[in-house]
Amino acid sequence: MITNAAGRKVPDKINGEAVIPYQGVGKYHPLGNKYNARISVAANYPSDGNKQVSDLKSALLRAGIKDGMTISTHHHFRNGDLLANQLFDVAKDLGIKDLIWFPSASFPCHEHLIPYLEDGTIAGIEGSMNGPLGKFCSEGKMKRTAVLRSHGGRYQAIQDGELTIDIAVIGAASADAFGNANGLNGPSASGLLGFALADSQYADKVIVVTDHLVPFPCVPWQIQGNYVDFTVVLDKIGIPEKIVSGTTQITKSPDRLLIAELTAKFCDEAGIIKEGFSFQAGAGGTALAIGDFFAQIMRRKGIKARFARGGSNQYLINMLEEGLIDYVLDGQTFDLSGVESMRKNENHVWTSPFTSYNYHGKGNFASMLDVVILGATEVDLNFNANVVTHSDGYLLHGIGGWQNCLFGKTVILPIPLFRNRIPIIRDRVTTLCGPGELIDVIVTERGIAINPLRQDLIEKLQDSDLPIKSLGDLKQEAEEICGVPEPVELSDEIVAAIKWVDGTVIDVVYKVKEM
Amino acid sequence: MITNAAGRKVPDKINGEAVIPYQGVGKYHPLGNKYNARISVAANYPSDGNKQVSDLKSALLRAGIKDGMTISTHHHFRNGDLLANQLFDVAKDLGIKDLIWFPSASFPCHEHLIPYLEDGTIAGIEGSMNGPLGKFCSEGKMKRTAVLRSHGGRYQAIQDGELTIDIAVIGAASADAFGNANGLNGPSASGLLGFALADSQYADKVIVVTDHLVPFPCVPWQIQGNYVDFTVVLDKIGIPEKIVSGTTQITKSPDRLLIAELTAKFCDEAGIIKEGFSFQAGAGGTALAIGDFFAQIMRRKGIKARFARGGSNQYLINMLEEGLIDYVLDGQTFDLSGVESMRKNENHVWTSPFTSYNYHGKGNFASMLDVVILGATEVDLNFNANVVTHSDGYLLHGIGGWQNCLFGKTVILPIPLFRNRIPIIRDRVTTLCGPGELIDVIVTERGIAINPLRQDLIEKLQDSDLPIKSLGDLKQEAEEICGVPEPVELSDEIVAAIKWVDGTVIDVVYKVKEM
Repeated sequence: MITNAAGRKVPDKINGEAVIPYQGVGKYHPLGNKYNARISVAANYPSDGNKQVSDLKSALLRAGIKDGMTISTHHHFRNGDLLANQLFDVAKDLGIKDLIWFPSASFPCHEHLIPYLEDGTIAGIEGSMNGPLGKFCSEGKMKRTAVLRSHGGRYQAIQDGELTIDIAVIGAASADAFGNANGLNGPSASGLLGFALADSQYADKVIVVTDHLVPFPCVPWQIQGNYVDFTVVLDKIGIPEKIVSGTTQITKSPDRLLIAELTAKFCDEAGIIKEGFSFQAGAGGTALAIGDFFAQIMRRKGIKARFARGGSNQYLINMLEEGLIDYVLDGQTFDLSGVESMRKNENHVWTSPFTSYNYHGKGNFASMLDVVILGATEVDLNFNANVVTHSDGYLLHGIGGWQNCLFGKTVILPIPLFRNRIPIIRDRVTTLCGPGELIDVIVTERGIAINPLRQDLIEKLQDSDLPIKSLGDLKQEAEEICGVPEPVELSDEIVAAIKWVDGTVIDVVYKVKEM
Repeated sequence: MITNAAGRKVPDKINGEAVIPYQGVGKYHPLGNKYNARISVAANYPSDGNKQVSDLKSALLRAGIKDGMTISTHHHFRNGDLLANQLFDVAKDLGIKDLIWFPSASFPCHEHLIPYLEDGTIAGIEGSMNGPLGKFCSEGKMKRTAVLRSHGGRYQAIQDGELTIDIAVIGAASADAFGNANGLNGPSASGLLGFALADSQYADKVIVVTDHLVPFPCVPWQIQGNYVDFTVVLDKIGIPEKIVSGTTQITKSPDRLLIAELTAKFCDEAGIIKEGFSFQAGAGGTALAIGDFFAQIMRRKGIKARFARGGSNQYLINMLEEGLIDYVLDGQTFDLSGVESMRKNENHVWTSPFTSYNYHGKGNFASMLDVVILGATEVDLNFNANVVTHSDGYLLHGIGGWQNCLFGKTVILPIPLFRNRIPIIRDRVTTLCGPGELIDVIVTERGIAINPLRQDLIEKLQDSDLPIKSLGDLKQEAEEICGVPEPVELSDEIVAAIKWVDGTVIDVVYKVKEM
């Protein structure tokens, strides 16, 4: 075990492979080259462009599926995904063992895979685990150590050859037989396919699976058929109402609304909400409320934003259509308004983790945002934050784009001071996901704390009527109400590693102790 | 020298590097991997996304320009390009020597660079040379052997690391300071930037130069800023009227119109023009006339094409807007109608040599076309064709997408039987660019020859009133009119190599003898 630059103890090997400990923000400069996939030859592909094979099993067999391979999927179908489960059903049928599953994220619907993790069909998961699989992992039941990466970190890892994908299985709402695909049309439409981009570019074999085959050309080709080996048509690859919600809704909780209002007022007083600014909120109830407060301020001031980053939703689309935003640069659509807008509005642009988040590119969009609103499960007095584990040690959330977004010019975490009477400001976060130096402001229902590194913000707000406090004071307030939380004892067995945006290991997750 | 699979003598080394002789269509299966560019780190790029430097010289210096480097440019500005000349003016000023220029094509406007080829600033050219540079090369005045590749072959060569680009200089009609760029807007608009795609993806350093800077985000990002190191704004990077013509015109020559009519009738009788078919013509006067005849046939039959490949032009756009074509998949726009249509019509899709032509991909669009209409300077009795040299040995044309398009289902060369009293059907083509097995039909003003390999076409046309003849008979007719051409003696000094779509050497070009 090595103590990394964030003071966390991390191993020098994970699953038998050497890893690099976190070295500080922007400090790790690899000298290597990107991963170089095998050269393909057009003569080995059907000249009429028809790569369709009869079913998923045939495609996996022709792709050469075998023990120990790494199989990737994406999460654009979220909790409505029917494909990953079918894929591993086939692997189980075929008696394949020790697969590594490399999803861009997994959801409660993937609880179906737990028996395969138990019987050795799947040896481990590299990817975010929301819910049951995270619990399973936390309890030390996975053969391999899990590896969690941000969306950008996943692109980086694939690009840099940190891991190689043997077979990528890309569920596409719409595709042609050549493999051109998009997420815009068809019954499983979710808007875009950016999370599968790296998989298509770098995997050895690529299978596109759709339930909505269109004649060539399927445009726009968010996934380019020139990267695709086989196409498969299934009856149904997703459950529409679980893929995108009909509507996403602003919080009705008075506390959350207060947090949202304080956040928007803070941004206004800090001079962030100005002509041509840019912002990224998100689709949670509080984030939506913040976007709505932003809109009110913008209307009052008569200004507009140059761009907003999605997760898009009806509120953001309304702002785009009202002319309050020039462009939405979108990574995923959270409701039907988002999908519909991406289909028809050319200023609603689909992006990918490559353009938005990849830290091993020549820059990315994340650092260009004036203000970014994010969540957290815990923060410490140095503004370090956790987004994957709860204070009881359970790994229940993925990193998503969270780490990548920390590079925004001002990063604000609007979070309640306590959840279920458990304070969120801790002496030490259970798992470190983001270094405090990148987190500028914590907004709670009982006050706002500004990172001392941001003297510019402190000065701008010095005469404010907003409840500016120290993080220590906020912590004390919470503890006066809820009591000082008991330390949670975890075992010393590592069940998961948390990668930083550059592929280094920032922290690990420990097995929870049996009750 | 080795005799390759086409019976042509080719060297085993070009410019000191080992090369692979042509092995037959679809026969070369490299076992290697793609080129792996260096990993970049976002921390080394401006976090606000502003990569603008003051001028081209600063950008080249910061990109580390030095002797012997390979510098690439693209030809979307065609004969209106002002950038390549300025770029090498800077190199000359800096006293840099032995540069390799790797344009996607060069034009008469680049005659400006001949003094730099003479004084050693530029050691040689890898790329098509239309006009004066071709003549200069033919006369043996270039230090290095030139290498000519198709559009797809150029993508393949870059992707496969056959050559590496040290600095790519990408002229963009429209760009933001981060380097996102497109060819759609601004005074130098030419529609798209597909020819520079590989350069952006694989070059070590990438400089985007524009005369039309827009605030981030410049969308669509045909070139992604995440690949770009520096951006430069110049007053003027192109001469609009030489970049795109106001209008492209159908030929008025009665002979050419006859050839066009015969071609269209042939396609009709062969059953090619049917509901949902696809075609690629081009923008020459004869090709435009063929497109127009196609339109007449389609209207009469009440059918439409699923897609047409551009080079787009006003006639093709009219067909798209009339509903005769569902999609135009475009590689370059040849007139203002093409640019305007690509801007506003989502069914007018910009493509790249990667999607359209790259032979070392998992298939490409070229082989999916039902019929492709191409030109040639010479053909022989086995349907082998030449597209780069004239019968006097002068290298005056590039390959363009010509070789790539030979993979279409039916390939037709509509060509006059003789030009300036020089017959085009020869015993042996001066330079072999395309193997006869891929060329199906030759249409001349005095008859149509079908490749005996296409018995299906011969059978379909057996009762036709069209003047179907053997290629031998057509050759004899031409020689009866013009006389048997004198053989042209060339020196045995190799001045250029012609690559096949897979990177192998299909033929070479010899130095012309002094008059």
